[in-house]
Amino acid sequence: MKIAGLSAFPLTPLVDDRLDEESFAAQIVRLARSGVDSIGALGSTGSCVYLSREERHRAIEIAAEMSEGVPLIAGIGAVSTSHVIQHAADAQLAGADALLLAPVSYQPLTEDDVYGLYADVTSATDLPVVVYDNPRTTGFSFSHELYGRVAQLPNVVSIKIPGVPEDPTTARAHVDAIRAIIPSHVTIGVSGDAFAAAGLQAGCDAWYSVLAGTLPEPALRITRAAHRGDDAAATAECARLQPLWDLFAQHGGSIRVVAAIAEHVGRAQRSCLPKPLLGLDDEAREDVTHVITDLGLVP
Amino acid sequence: MKIAGLSAFPLTPLVDDRLDEESFAAQIVRLARSGVDSIGALGSTGSCVYLSREERHRAIEIAAEMSEGVPLIAGIGAVSTSHVIQHAADAQLAGADALLLAPVSYQPLTEDDVYGLYADVTSATDLPVVVYDNPRTTGFSFSHELYGRVAQLPNVVSIKIPGVPEDPTTARAHVDAIRAIIPSHVTIGVSGDAFAAAGLQAGCDAWYSVLAGTLPEPALRITRAAHRGDDAAATAECARLQPLWDLFAQHGGSIRVVAAIAEHVGRAQRSCLPKPLLGLDDEAREDVTHVITDLGLVP
Repeated sequence: MKIAGLSAFPLTPLVDDRLDEESFAAQIVRLARSGVDSIGALGSTGSCVYLSREERHRAIEIAAEMSEGVPLIAGIGAVSTSHVIQHAADAQLAGADALLLAPVSYQPLTEDDVYGLYADVTSATDLPVVVYDNPRTTGFSFSHELYGRVAQLPNVVSIKIPGVPEDPTTARAHVDAIRAIIPSHVTIGVSGDAFAAAGLQAGCDAWYSVLAGTLPEPALRITRAAHRGDDAAATAECARLQPLWDLFAQHGGSIRVVAAIAEHVGRAQRSCLPKPLLGLDDEAREDVTHVITDLGLVP
Repeated sequence: MKIAGLSAFPLTPLVDDRLDEESFAAQIVRLARSGVDSIGALGSTGSCVYLSREERHRAIEIAAEMSEGVPLIAGIGAVSTSHVIQHAADAQLAGADALLLAPVSYQPLTEDDVYGLYADVTSATDLPVVVYDNPRTTGFSFSHELYGRVAQLPNVVSIKIPGVPEDPTTARAHVDAIRAIIPSHVTIGVSGDAFAAAGLQAGCDAWYSVLAGTLPEPALRITRAAHRGDDAAATAECARLQPLWDLFAQHGGSIRVVAAIAEHVGRAQRSCLPKPLLGLDDEAREDVTHVITDLGLVP
């Protein structure tokens, strides 16, 4: 399995702090029909670590049932290796095509801990595994050397990196340096939606996108422009969306903003995030509504 | 319930990645008979967030059964408020006397999220609650203002703060500033064993101690000296243990070092930490053995 192109990471909306199966299923159907290349359920935006084992299993069942053949990547992160391995088995049973694993931490992790985690999990599953480097939520940053070590493990098919450096030459060198130490079958995907055009132009194979999980169309415009080599169009569309990226930054990440968008357009009920995560307050929601309306992202 | 004096936080040893009930029970008995003022089971050192709901429940049952009337504080942290509330109910059923709650995070938390967490949990339990500020593991730092807000909540009885400033006058001012904005019935306890003498001298009511959970005697010497007003003796004993505090710092916190100690003295089997946390390597274990032998902490 080769993960490339646009991978869309939807919310896993809750209602009364339980899985909102209907809203989640409807969103998976929308994504499956939107033209995205894969769907990442239970990513960070999908509240992976906030759900019980049963809720995770049910969410992946729904996503597998509704994804209409679009490859389904299932987040399996947890602080305990034993729980991660359970989630991997559950996700496979539920119909996932690939797994996404971040080194979720409570006690700070060493590089050897993280390597051991991936070694244990990749040897316990036969599904493809995406290595997920998300320093903001895990408190752990991969070294390039560690990328190289984990990418050699069986079943590892992709590395989901955080944003790339702003300068195009530096960004290209950054991606090239990772590429040089991983096997050729392992793809590199950029995260941090503001870095999408820069990451794709720097040579990333995939964009693991939060925006695409809720509003796939603008993300598809950027991805398609980059893939047909129209860097100017990709960069222009990404730059046009800067007010949205600014809101992501202002609210400590994208999840609260996309939750407000999903609630605004009726794709989730208020409050769809797992407690203790509070949704945006009314004033911030107004800002979000103005921005997405001005950008023409919603009717 | 007034939490003061020495609170001992034992490991929750595993064997083959499952709860080692026998080793855990034996350690609780040792602590109960050692003279510590309370026992904190399933703290950070007790691998709280790494265990399943069932394992947590069983660990608190064992601790309640073996603690011989010494007050038992149970860690209930989790990233989801709904899971924290389940753990609180489970811990009460299992016989805990008080609860310890850190704002465990995956998505970075806001002050309002954290306040909401404590408001929801304290209103769902009638057990006393210790507010646990552990920026190193949670990625969240309380402001003094937030200490003040959560300390007003019903059932909050203590705040577990990280280390105090090194300078005694600054440390006293720091503790006084917290004291000034919390109700008089709420105690303040210092964490970070290297700060024990400094924290107690600065006016902390309690020492929430990792060392005491595995080796209570040296921790009791410091606490008793501080409580009889012999600041010089408390400071001297704390300073004498500096090589141990240096090992804690060198290995990214205390847990791997106390696990190595517990394994060395036969109070846990190797490897007693939950994966992906690896124990120390053989070279580091030799350092630990030298230090605790030189300090006269083990036979």
